Amino acid sequence: MIKTNLQLANISTKDLLSYQPQVAKIHAELENNANNETGFLGWLNLPFQYEKDLTFKATWDKMQTLAVKLQQEIDILVVIGIGGSYLGTRAAVEMIQGLFNLKAPVKIIYVGNTMSSTYLYQILAYLKDKEFAINVISKSGTTTEPAIAFRLLKDLLKKQKQDEAIVKSRIIAITGAEKSLLHDLATASSYQTFIIPNNIGGRYSVLTPVGIFAMMVAGIDCQQVIKGAQLAYQACKNDQIAKNDAYAYAVARYHLYKNNHKAVEILVSYELQMQMFCEWWKQLFGESEGKAGKGLLPVSVIFSTDLHSMGQFIQEGSKIFFETVIKVLTPNADVKIPLHKHDDDQLNYLTKYSLHDINNIALQGTLAAHSDEEQGKTPNIVLEWAKMDAEMFGYASYFFMKACAVSASLLGVDPFNQPGVEFYKKKMFALLGKS
Amino acid sequence: MIKTNLQLANISTKDLLSYQPQVAKIHAELENNANNETGFLGWLNLPFQYEKDLTFKATWDKMQTLAVKLQQEIDILVVIGIGGSYLGTRAAVEMIQGLFNLKAPVKIIYVGNTMSSTYLYQILAYLKDKEFAINVISKSGTTTEPAIAFRLLKDLLKKQKQDEAIVKSRIIAITGAEKSLLHDLATASSYQTFIIPNNIGGRYSVLTPVGIFAMMVAGIDCQQVIKGAQLAYQACKNDQIAKNDAYAYAVARYHLYKNNHKAVEILVSYELQMQMFCEWWKQLFGESEGKAGKGLLPVSVIFSTDLHSMGQFIQEGSKIFFETVIKVLTPNADVKIPLHKHDDDQLNYLTKYSLHDINNIALQGTLAAHSDEEQGKTPNIVLEWAKMDAEMFGYASYFFMKACAVSASLLGVDPFNQPGVEFYKKKMFALLGKS
Repeated sequence: MIKTNLQLANISTKDLLSYQPQVAKIHAELENNANNETGFLGWLNLPFQYEKDLTFKATWDKMQTLAVKLQQEIDILVVIGIGGSYLGTRAAVEMIQGLFNLKAPVKIIYVGNTMSSTYLYQILAYLKDKEFAINVISKSGTTTEPAIAFRLLKDLLKKQKQDEAIVKSRIIAITGAEKSLLHDLATASSYQTFIIPNNIGGRYSVLTPVGIFAMMVAGIDCQQVIKGAQLAYQACKNDQIAKNDAYAYAVARYHLYKNNHKAVEILVSYELQMQMFCEWWKQLFGESEGKAGKGLLPVSVIFSTDLHSMGQFIQEGSKIFFETVIKVLTPNADVKIPLHKHDDDQLNYLTKYSLHDINNIALQGTLAAHSDEEQGKTPNIVLEWAKMDAEMFGYASYFFMKACAVSASLLGVDPFNQPGVEFYKKKMFALLGKS
Repeated sequence: MIKTNLQLANISTKDLLSYQPQVAKIHAELENNANNETGFLGWLNLPFQYEKDLTFKATWDKMQTLAVKLQQEIDILVVIGIGGSYLGTRAAVEMIQGLFNLKAPVKIIYVGNTMSSTYLYQILAYLKDKEFAINVISKSGTTTEPAIAFRLLKDLLKKQKQDEAIVKSRIIAITGAEKSLLHDLATASSYQTFIIPNNIGGRYSVLTPVGIFAMMVAGIDCQQVIKGAQLAYQACKNDQIAKNDAYAYAVARYHLYKNNHKAVEILVSYELQMQMFCEWWKQLFGESEGKAGKGLLPVSVIFSTDLHSMGQFIQEGSKIFFETVIKVLTPNADVKIPLHKHDDDQLNYLTKYSLHDINNIALQGTLAAHSDEEQGKTPNIVLEWAKMDAEMFGYASYFFMKACAVSASLLGVDPFNQPGVEFYKKKMFALLGKS
């Protein structure tokens, strides 16, 4: 479902395949450790776990039942989470449903992803008279932003409902099973709780309850999400670069970094509803690779919107980047340009196209301009996506996770840790006087 | 109202002041041409134009009267525009009012900023039964995205109202006076029309009717916006770097580019409502500077949100960037952390702070971590902002426009053209078969 086109990336097949021994070695290591309960490879076989493993199956059914129940009771699901406990869910909901969806049974809003007092103040006022439930997501339960939001939202819900049983039925915790303050707290308060597997890290967790539960409440067909991930698993299980598009993408971007000295990868989409998917991708690659003074800085743009802001720079500015362009073949909905008799806006020449045709023609023209050898000089990787639905979200998220694990390993860094994230927290907690 | 702190930027006063002769020359050239009717310096004296110039004054009053009238009639103002006809308006509305504002008299939504068929399809469905007006913004009237959106939205409005007089009263055009298809069309249809001065380009146009009219409809006190711009004008009129923070910022970023070989400037804010302001800033600097293979790639992040995605990269990844951090002293609203008797989430130690205090302590801790000489190595420029209101928006937008004009001139490129933007359009129109 994702076809990786390297034609404009200025990489020869010979160059690409020169990485085969390294890739085969990385592949074997991933495969050999995929079932380990320690380490962070739990996401590798996850697409089949929900069918094979009874505990996973039971979790799935419980989530589905609860989601349907909540859809009858609430208007808004407040997802409390940050980073890997936030971006995947939002990426999925917006990509699949779009930005102005009238059909979703429940609206999702996101808090615990900021310490902005204005944002939280406005959300509290907004929710005051709404029917809402809280989905609090944190593996450890100690992350400051979601913890603060949860304290405030819980107080609001208590004040609104005045009935402990209703309050409890409106709080769903998704957390780790061990050494988790949120788990302790949820158990003590008998909140509905779903477990994040120990061997899956935040940025690889979107297909665990972290992402799946909120998607279910939003009305997304999560069987299709998992089916897409299974298809990606099958498509990306070959250790040969030539037969595995995720690996071809990983190698191409690494080659552009190492050989062409590109410092930045710009992920390009032509759909506004893909913006949060790009943010999810930025965390996945940025946090996996940005170590030891190395890594491509991940940046994203949405065209043609940002052609009218960043287009000039990409065409003629510093040549420090390459582009990875997501081309969607079939849109979720299309629009015809109506014929106007007088043509006073001179658009009648477009009436032979649908709007999506025009969007993809803009993509072709832009690719030609950016990759032009004289004037653009920007290498491009094109990823052709069939569509933007639940199945594609499952496919694409798995595709990029697999690519990222290989890409970071080629770079010589651990794809699954994030040692640098602790440093600012240490400084911050010292200033806050945390014991 | 903006205090530029270069303390962490690793730039000595001597280095900074070594640019004084160049800056004085650029300054003199800007001043000498400020009143030219050709060229693109009309934004320089604009903050006082609304008081001094009778035509400007009359436009202002007409806009204000119409805005108040519309507030009684409509629920939604649909702003049709892209790039400089879109980003400034949205930056202002979101920065000043926040993302979940319950008090705004009219909700603003944005179209004509994309060719996504799904987005436009959903918007059309959403607007079907809403009371809305159309504010179409395009200097030339020939830009494809807004032109398509305008044709579709106008048809929807006609279908909804069935009364030509009402339709006309609900369409407001903001456009150039000369060689403008939209101007011709608006005149022929007798739409309410406000003029974009000829000598002001898109990315410098937010204080013209382009930005001001929609702000007025949104309920923003635009007298305060202009007052802020006037204060910035006064604060940034000195040609001495040591006495002009906009120039100090311009020189510092240029120095980091030229001397420290930084390739990327990351604009950092700690407020989600500042995201679109950052997008506006990205267009301003990216489109002004990205020429002749030169320029800092402008990137933005919102912390602490993105500390949980891009934080790892910034702390330990490739050292290709510096940060410019916006520190807001007084928030639009604040929240106290309530004391919980049992402290089962271990947050009671924070109850002595307000949430905004904590946000600013996170800023201090993060600055310390990122600028740490051993572990972060990232130069930082800190811009202290008093607040995030209408006056501050006027101040900040003028401050950055002035800084950008000087910064691009130091780089040796024209701050006011965008020759590279035409190239993809040429390729696209050829594919579309436009004559």
